[in-house]
This record gives sequence, C-alpha cells and structure tokens, in this order.
Amino acid sequence: MKISLAQINPTVGDLNYNYKLIVKHANIAEKNGAEILITPELSICGYPPEDLLLNDEFIESCKYFLNKIAVKFPNLKIIIGHPRKHKNLLFNSASLLFKGKIQKTYDKKILPNYGVFDEKRYFNSGQKSVIFNHKNKKFGILICEDIWTHGPAEDLSQNNVDYIICINASPYEINKASKRVHEIQKRISRLGAIQLIYVNLVGGQDELLFDGLSFITHPNIDDSNRNVYFSSKQFLTLNATVDLSSNLGESVIEKYDKFPFHRIPSSSHLHLADDSITKQCLIYNLLNGLILAMKDYVKKNSIKNIFIGLSGGIDSAIVLFIASKAIKKENITAVMMPSVFTSKSSLEDAKSLAKNLGVTYKVTNIEPLMKSFKKSLAKDFKGLENDITEENLQARIRGVLLMAYANKFNGMVLATGNKSEIAVGYSTVYGDMVGGFSVLKDVPKTLVYKIANEINYDQIIIPNRIITRPPSAELSENQTDQDNLPNYDVLDGIIDLYIEKNYSSAMIIKKGFSAQVVKKVVKLIESNEFKRRQSAPGPKVTYKAFGKDRRYPITSNYKP
Amino acid sequence: MKISLAQINPTVGDLNYNYKLIVKHANIAEKNGAEILITPELSICGYPPEDLLLNDEFIESCKYFLNKIAVKFPNLKIIIGHPRKHKNLLFNSASLLFKGKIQKTYDKKILPNYGVFDEKRYFNSGQKSVIFNHKNKKFGILICEDIWTHGPAEDLSQNNVDYIICINASPYEINKASKRVHEIQKRISRLGAIQLIYVNLVGGQDELLFDGLSFITHPNIDDSNRNVYFSSKQFLTLNATVDLSSNLGESVIEKYDKFPFHRIPSSSHLHLADDSITKQCLIYNLLNGLILAMKDYVKKNSIKNIFIGLSGGIDSAIVLFIASKAIKKENITAVMMPSVFTSKSSLEDAKSLAKNLGVTYKVTNIEPLMKSFKKSLAKDFKGLENDITEENLQARIRGVLLMAYANKFNGMVLATGNKSEIAVGYSTVYGDMVGGFSVLKDVPKTLVYKIANEINYDQIIIPNRIITRPPSAELSENQTDQDNLPNYDVLDGIIDLYIEKNYSSAMIIKKGFSAQVVKKVVKLIESNEFKRRQSAPGPKVTYKAFGKDRRYPITSNYKP
Repeated sequence: MKISLAQINPTVGDLNYNYKLIVKHANIAEKNGAEILITPELSICGYPPEDLLLNDEFIESCKYFLNKIAVKFPNLKIIIGHPRKHKNLLFNSASLLFKGKIQKTYDKKILPNYGVFDEKRYFNSGQKSVIFNHKNKKFGILICEDIWTHGPAEDLSQNNVDYIICINASPYEINKASKRVHEIQKRISRLGAIQLIYVNLVGGQDELLFDGLSFITHPNIDDSNRNVYFSSKQFLTLNATVDLSSNLGESVIEKYDKFPFHRIPSSSHLHLADDSITKQCLIYNLLNGLILAMKDYVKKNSIKNIFIGLSGGIDSAIVLFIASKAIKKENITAVMMPSVFTSKSSLEDAKSLAKNLGVTYKVTNIEPLMKSFKKSLAKDFKGLENDITEENLQARIRGVLLMAYANKFNGMVLATGNKSEIAVGYSTVYGDMVGGFSVLKDVPKTLVYKIANEINYDQIIIPNRIITRPPSAELSENQTDQDNLPNYDVLDGIIDLYIEKNYSSAMIIKKGFSAQVVKKVVKLIESNEFKRRQSAPGPKVTYKAFGKDRRYPITSNYKP
Repeated sequence: MKISLAQINPTVGDLNYNYKLIVKHANIAEKNGAEILITPELSICGYPPEDLLLNDEFIESCKYFLNKIAVKFPNLKIIIGHPRKHKNLLFNSASLLFKGKIQKTYDKKILPNYGVFDEKRYFNSGQKSVIFNHKNKKFGILICEDIWTHGPAEDLSQNNVDYIICINASPYEINKASKRVHEIQKRISRLGAIQLIYVNLVGGQDELLFDGLSFITHPNIDDSNRNVYFSSKQFLTLNATVDLSSNLGESVIEKYDKFPFHRIPSSSHLHLADDSITKQCLIYNLLNGLILAMKDYVKKNSIKNIFIGLSGGIDSAIVLFIASKAIKKENITAVMMPSVFTSKSSLEDAKSLAKNLGVTYKVTNIEPLMKSFKKSLAKDFKGLENDITEENLQARIRGVLLMAYANKFNGMVLATGNKSEIAVGYSTVYGDMVGGFSVLKDVPKTLVYKIANEINYDQIIIPNRIITRPPSAELSENQTDQDNLPNYDVLDGIIDLYIEKNYSSAMIIKKGFSAQVVKKVVKLIESNEFKRRQSAPGPKVTYKAFGKDRRYPITSNYKP
C-alpha cells in the first residue's frame, strides 16, 4: 500500500496557487501508484492565515477549492488541512476527500496559544476522533499540537488504529528537528504497534519558517530501535511516495528544488540520528533555512530588486551571501557607503565580496551628505560635542540612500542586524534598521560567525579579514563593538539564558556571569523594545525570537 | 454602607508605584469612612502585562506587594486585581484583603482572546464563584469579560447576592461608553434586584487607552429606568466614596487631575444618557483621551523632550495641540522644514500655531539637503524622471533631522500620521512615519477635522486656513491628497466598512461606493501591511485599530 506525502510550500491566502500545488501533487501521487495523498495543516490557505480567518468570504473560498479538488480526483484519497465553519464556530480541520466529496472531517482538538501561536483567537476545539479504513487498515487523523498532548493519540490507540496521520505546520528552530522526531517516537512507542505518518509544511511566512522534515515512524520502535521508517529532508519542497507494506520504507521522491547551498553529501537520515548531528550540520541546515526564508519573502511578496548596504562587516556579508542564493544575482545591488571612519580594509573587503558573489556593486560616499546635515544643524548644535547623534546621522543617511535606490528601481532593502544587536538596541532605528526583511533578526552574533565559517568551508567566499577582525560599526574613530558591549560570547550567553531560557538576572549571575554585565545587558534588552517594534520581520530560528514569539510591553517599569 | 471606587492609573510592571497608588486610595477610603475599597483588574501590575506574566519572579513580586497591602490596612476590605499562580497554573484573579491577609480569591472565568486581548496565552479559566458577606449583604466578585458572557453573573444571582463587584480593564472606544453602561444595565436588570459596582482602569498603555467611567447601577432598573446610581468621569484618575444605603448615590469624589482640554460644563451623567450624547461630546471626550494617551506614554517611559515636525497641515497641528496639553510647553519643540514645495501659507500657519501654543519653534530648510542627496544620486539616477523617490526623499530628510534633534537633546519624535493615511500607505516609511508615539494612528482624517473644530470652538487656536484648505503632503508641485486618494469622506467610509465592520468589497460596493474606488482602496490597505508593521504605537480609539487589534499577514496573496 503506497501513500504519498506532499511536503509543500503554499502561500498564505493564495488559494488558487495552493489549489494548483495540491493538484500537482495529486497527479504525482496517482502517477506513482499512491492510494492516499497527505498534505500539511491548513494546506489550502497556508499557515498562519491570522485575521484572514475572521473573514467569512475567505472561509467560503477555502471550501470552494476543497470541493474542487475532491471532484478532480475521485479515485485518490486526499487529506487536506483547511479552516471550517460549522454552526458559526470555526475549526482547524483535516478532511478526507474521496469519490468526489468530503468523506470525513477531523477538527483539531488541542489548539496552541503560546509562543508564536494564536489558535485560540480563531478556532474552537474539536471533540471527536476521526478514523477511516483503507484496505483493512485503520487510519486515525491528528493535527500538529494534538500529537504533543496526552489525549488525542491515546483515543485513537484505544480504537485500535494501525496508522496515525498527523498533518502539521510546525515552525523550524535550530535544535528542534531531532528532538521533534525523537519525542514523537517516544510517545508513539507507548501506544503499541502504531505507525505515525507526519507531514509538515515547508517555506517562509513573515516571521516563521517551516522546515518540512516529514517522516514515518518505524512499525516497531522501542528504546533500542530509534530508526525512522522514512524521512524527508528539511527545507525542500518534495513529494514522497512511500510503500507502507515494504520493510524498508521504499520510496519515490520527487523534489522540486535543491539546497541552494550544498556542501556535504548527506543521506536523508543523517540529520535524524543524534550521533551524526554535528554542530556543523545544524549550521548547514540553518543556512539553507535562512536562504529559503528570504527566497519566499521576496517571491511571495512579488519583490523584484534587492538593495543591501555593505559595510565591510560580517553581518552584511552574510546577508548578501544569503541574498545571492535566494535571488537572481542580476537583481541584487550591494551599496558601500563609506564615511571618514570607514577603514581601507572595509572598502577592499566589501568590494571583493561583491565580486566573489557576482552582484552589482556601487560606492556612494556619505561625506558630502554628512557635511550638509552638519551645516543644517550647526546653528542648533553650536558648542555641543559630537555624540551618538552624529553616529546615528551616518547610519540614517545610509538608510535614506538605500531607500532612494529601492524606490527608484522598484526594490526592497534588506536589513542586516543580528539578534545580539537587536536585543541590546545596538542599532540605529531608521538607519541600519531600515529594510523590508531582516534575515538575521533571530541569529545571534556568535552564530553569524559560525555561518561565515560554513560558507567558507570549501573555498573563501567571504574575505577572511571580514571574519577575523574585531567587529565595529565604524561610526566614530577607532570604534569597536566591544567599546560599548561585552564580548559577544558573553553577550550571547546572557541573551540565551535571559530570552530563550527565561532565566532571571539572579539566576544568570549564579551561572557565573558578572553581575554588573548582566544588569547592564538586561536593562538594555528591556529598554529597547521600542526599537524592536519598528523593526522589519525576520524568521524565527531559535527557541524564542523577538516579535510575535515574545510579546513585551514597551511601557513597563518592571526591573527584572 | 460606604464603598470606595479607585479609578486608578497604574503603570505596567511598576509594582512599587502601583502599590503606593493603592495605599494612597486606601488612606482616602478610610478617611472618607468607606468600608470596602475596590481597585480595577490587575491593578497591582497594570494591564496588559503581556509576557511579563511568563516570568515567575514577576508573579512572586505581585504576591509580595499584595500581602504588604493586606498587612497595612487590616480594617479595610480591599479588592485587588492580580495575577496568581496556583499548582503551576496562572489565573487572572481578584482577592479580598482583610484582617492582614487574603480572605478569598476569585479567578476570572471568561478569558477574552480576541481583538487586542490575549488572555488565553497566559491564564487558565477559574471554575468557582466567590461570595463574601459584609453587614448582612452578600457581595459577588467578577472580572471584566465575565459580565459580558452568560454564566458568571447568573451563578452569583442564584446565590442571591445583593451586589456584584466587577473589576475591569476595559479599553476605550469612541462609541463604547454608553453602550457599555446600557448593555450591562440590561443584563443586570434580568437578574433581579442586584446592584452592579463597575470599576475600570484609566490611562494609556502602548496601544491601549483605558477610560475609567466606573459606575454603579441603580437598585431598581427596568426598561423605564435607565439611570445609573453613580457614575464617574472618563479619563480622570479619581476616588469615589459612595454611600450604597442612600437613595441618591451620594458620593465624595476626590480627583487627582482635571480635563486638560476643558470646554463644556458637563455633569457626571451627561455622557451616559443617549439623548445628551451629542457627537460633539464624543469628540470632546476623544480629545481628552488622546491627550491622556500621550501624557502617559511620555511620562511612563520617562521621556523628557518632544520634537514634532510641523508641516502647516492639520495632522501635525492637532498632534502639536495634544502635545501642548500633555507635556510642559518648555519641553516641546516644533520644527518646520520647508522645501520648494512648501507654500507660504503653510509657513505662516505653522508659525502662528506654534505661537498660539507657546512652544519653541524652529525653521530648518531642507533644500540644501535635497540638493546634496540629488547630487550624490545624480550618477545613478541619470536620465530618470522625478517620481515618488524624490517625494520620499524630502520626507526622509525631515525624519533624519527630527531624529537628530531628538538624539542631541534627549527627546522623542512624535509621529503625525492619521488612520486614513496609515490604512492606504499614504505615508513615507522612515520619513513622516518617524516617531516613538503616533497619537492619531487610529483617528480617521474626517475625525481629525472634527477634533480641529472642537479645539477651535471657543477661540481660534488652530489657524482656520489649516482646517479649510485642501490637504496636501506638499512633496511636489501643486499636489493635493486627492490627486492619489478618493475624497476623505469616501475613503473613511470605505475604511470604516472594510476594517471596522469587516465588510467584503462586494458588500461595500452594494452600499453605493464606486467599485473601482473600493477595489483600489482595499488593495492599498492589504499591500501596505509592511509599512504598518514598522510604525510607532498609537492608542486604539475605534472598534478595530491597526496593530494588535488587527493581525494580518504581510505575506498574503488573498484578494478580498
């Protein structure tokens, strides 16, 4: 018995596009002899549709396309995720289509309403289990959060199902993939001889990135056998037709893209076994994920040209590299905007990076503009020392120039800030924070360095000096980031504990960090929420990202 | 029997400040002979504390201050709203303090998780009613949303309570006040002879504005008697000690502030009876609400100086007026930044407005800066026509100048955009959208005009020409807003139906609007979500504001 897993990348709200995507996969499934096609959670409308769900016409349109698919493939059993309105209540549902109509519908029981999730804003909880038969086998249906909570899977197990189909929209986090697979295996192993078929979305959507990694658990898992029966890659759109009766999980995999950054030969199981998950492999996957996030943002928002300010530093170098893998090179313009504080090495390195990546490179000196602003402000600033104002002025002139290019040539600016900077507000609002997408927003600086090394693994693409010299904003004489901030190892350590692990200052200090430094960093984090609120969206890749994942008041006098 | 209502303005997270505020009101209550003091929902920590609630230390600190109040006032019954952790579950609670300790605690049953509310992200639902006795009378406790849903009040009624105390953090909307009172009266009237004591927060918190308007329903309400027993004013911090045994709801009211903009003599009941709510009275209240929102943002975020770009147009005029009532005049600087497109009348009007309001006024010509930018970009823009790029450049130069003033003189810039502009993206990101607070963000342009007329009711404060001439961004020759946008009456009509009333395009067209215009406006609204995501916070005053009230994806290809 063959089933087909559609690890697809729908676009939120683009119902016609998503319909065509599912039709394409249904055709492949039929061609490969599959009897059941499984698509991810809310595959008909993309995830998360947010307040589009409050629009009745939107819900009706989803229903229209759902029926259209049912009619088109009467001989294939298809599981589709969709929103459903019933007696004025909205549900997050999965329907089984067959013989031209909806045969059964399961309504998600457990609705996540934490972190990035707001499902209780929209949906009601389903109450009933849904089971269907196929060739003397019993299949139960679950949706994402259902599998993580005691109840829904146990209900199916009591009904003696052979397979649980779980459709998902589970966002990527750098350390989550193997944890996800192992914890689900552990849960399933307690339920007896049930096999779980897990199908996940792939693709970028505003602040979220879905990593796919669909899999099927082994029919006999126990503590000594943690192999999966089948698993797909992260970050690739693909269709996998798997024979459930074969012992080996034989499969026909049709891929529709390939890793934009390909370095190591990897088997499809490589990233699932703990032993083989080297840190380097995680970074490799992260890099491909970031490329996909940017690619999808640009494509799904119909953005044509891309502009990026190169500083000669590491962040803008990585962002340019990611852009060069996500977007056609002829649509990318890198702009170097030197001031008197820009070092010769920055100019040289920016130029050689642009050359290595084959993108358009421009140099626009900001000195004349700085002079003009200083002149305009001379009367009002008379007798006052240079300070942060003049530093920000440089960053803002660059922002204005980049936006002028983007406006004139129909494009978008990429923001280059990393998570460490954004955490402590070491960035200029309306300056280097300018941009429509901020791909490193959730990537701490220490991880930015690791990405750089990954990129340079086989050949030097990013000039070595960009990686080795002390990081500097070059906004004043001989400035380095460490004039104002602790060492990035220390800073990222504190950010990890405070933001991601939700430690208090006292607990962080107990871990061995200097009390003075911890207090300073925590204060900076709390007092810079106003800047983050005006920052561009970027993909969540850690356990706790800024944005919808961490909702802090701007106005707050709590002293943690 | 006297009770004391504390219509207070706590600061989110500032537990020590809020503690002192409650202590102050407890002292007043005792002085005025009250036996029970009632404070609003989550009065100990402010509302909404958002993800501060995920911090265990924060919850512990709330408990600490709660106990401190109990010990300090052993002879006064005090109702305090606070978060409570019990068996690892968090509740939104109200405790009765007496004799030095917590006597009873009610956990909110109905948790709002729509619009601006995210209570299911944090809290669990309480299961039990709580009733306490005082002088042979039975009092039940409810919290905000509880009173709007069938169940909690009915449970109390079945237990024969004499009074229901409902503590609230109910945000302001321009048309909500009388509706709130009347609908609650209707609900209470069905429960027999119960009196409802409704205490609401007052003050601004990021995107929210609480209007107070605490009240007590009449003991005998029916369809013919809709008078309230007692009601307080909107937008004022006050303490009201009310005698529940008197027929007249006699009260001692201690106010701690006054309306910053005072025009009409108003009785405390004026804004509650439908007959007397003239549109003008709503505008008057709205204006005072906006002033409070700005005042609280500036005060609670410890912002010292304020900078605002004056254009000679109506939006910046109103924002400056609001600032002049919210902040000391000596801390306000209005900056006029003319270009070649700035009309003589704009220059004159801006100057006379600043003079009328007594704030510092500066003129900084942006022409030299425009020339510098054009020169820097000349090579790259060679042979290309002027377009939106040059218009945005002017707006962005102004943004950079304002931020330079704010950075140099330790201040914040006020954004001046209105809801109509922000809806259709008729604004320059990093240009006129620059600012830390956007007081008109949820005020449609047609309402901005009404506010201007209200301000000028008794004397001309805003030069008449600002109100009467056609609105223009003055970014190109002879430009007016209506070159690109429909008339504001039409635009605001469509925005009201599409955003606030959730109508589809088809439904709006049926209402008589031009199909072409509706489609254009709806497309503009949907395609400008990316700009709104980077905009400053501003207070919600309509039924549906942009921001946390309306959560739309940026990436969405749904065509409504």
